[in-house]
Amino acid sequence: MPNYHIVVAAGAGHRFGGPVPKQFCLLWGRPVLMTTLERLHTAAPEAAIIVVLSPGMEDEWAAMCREYGFGLAHTTVPGGATRAESVRAALRSIPDGGEVGWISIHDAARPMVTPEMFGRLTAALADGVDGVIPAVAVTDSLREVAPDGSSRAVDRALYRAVQTPQLFDGPKRLRADLMELRPDFTDDASVMEAAGFTRLVLAEGDPRNIKITHAGDISRIEAGGL
Amino acid sequence: MPNYHIVVAAGAGHRFGGPVPKQFCLLWGRPVLMTTLERLHTAAPEAAIIVVLSPGMEDEWAAMCREYGFGLAHTTVPGGATRAESVRAALRSIPDGGEVGWISIHDAARPMVTPEMFGRLTAALADGVDGVIPAVAVTDSLREVAPDGSSRAVDRALYRAVQTPQLFDGPKRLRADLMELRPDFTDDASVMEAAGFTRLVLAEGDPRNIKITHAGDISRIEAGGL
Repeated sequence: MPNYHIVVAAGAGHRFGGPVPKQFCLLWGRPVLMTTLERLHTAAPEAAIIVVLSPGMEDEWAAMCREYGFGLAHTTVPGGATRAESVRAALRSIPDGGEVGWISIHDAARPMVTPEMFGRLTAALADGVDGVIPAVAVTDSLREVAPDGSSRAVDRALYRAVQTPQLFDGPKRLRADLMELRPDFTDDASVMEAAGFTRLVLAEGDPRNIKITHAGDISRIEAGGL
Repeated sequence: MPNYHIVVAAGAGHRFGGPVPKQFCLLWGRPVLMTTLERLHTAAPEAAIIVVLSPGMEDEWAAMCREYGFGLAHTTVPGGATRAESVRAALRSIPDGGEVGWISIHDAARPMVTPEMFGRLTAALADGVDGVIPAVAVTDSLREVAPDGSSRAVDRALYRAVQTPQLFDGPKRLRADLMELRPDFTDDASVMEAAGFTRLVLAEGDPRNIKITHAGDISRIEAGGL
């Protein structure tokens, strides 16, 4: 059965502070997205890759692929206004009626996925499991903030910081896509849960699998600290 | 009234992965702790500085200060087995009976504090406020984990990631030190709250004020990304 990697590269990267969205900044001399796709492919080579780009970015991305001699097979689809809409666009590009195995959904700005970590996800996607979410320990102390501005310490050991790729049972993820999208869908797991697919399990992520958020994160990866 | 900076440099830094505790690794060619102390001093030069070192590290630290020509005035005290015990050791080195203004408590491995951020803390320590906690937005999606291993998405907008320095009303912080310490005191704010000093307010921290946790964090700071 065909498996799919969906890679969301449509974000404008407002937090990054530069004019170039972070997924197209240079990591080891090439746009970040190329490393992301290659590592995802290495982790699970049998899956087809669907890249969601901002509408209008297709030509620019194709030019980048030519310029850097990037030949890994993938399709592209134009994204939507939110991350959830972009994922939806990718899901709708999957041919109707055929069988589907799993679907992984990944952020373009997380280039450091490893076969070991991806293997933990596929191993956890057992019979009856709806999805697998990689997560790591929270390293900062956390406080919960009330509407009146007061706050209380919470035990950070009770929380996990969620990463991507998140791995889903394909037919269930496609069915969850029939739901109306809500603004509080900050990740794909929350879409699944809202659709009633609540058998989501956590797997161990990787602290090195960071999401490039600040400009310094690229230096940090290149310096080999990750 | 005298104010105090307490800087906790007694951690063994198990997460860092190297034989040298992270606060003594080289940042811009000098042990991290030197930058931490200088920046804290620049932010509030009127405060006395107390550095908590692992027992037995005093001679080594004094040798580092000579080697690097580090002349900023400070005292050192030997720390305890936990962070809370180390803070307690520093608090007990403050002369009895004299007046005390505020006490800031800071991690040695956060070298990037700025006068602007520290100014937000002192500005928020108004009459009746027990302490001020700098905090920043949580950038990862969060899930809360139940004892049975199941998890649920929580809205990360309701949480803040806590940083240091944390700033306290001095007399109240000294009184809170009379409490018995508990293993769930992961930061100084939780000690204060357990002692009944619950008027803790959050101030805006700084995303660049990272705690050096992984080896790559030093490259990230030096690369100017922070």
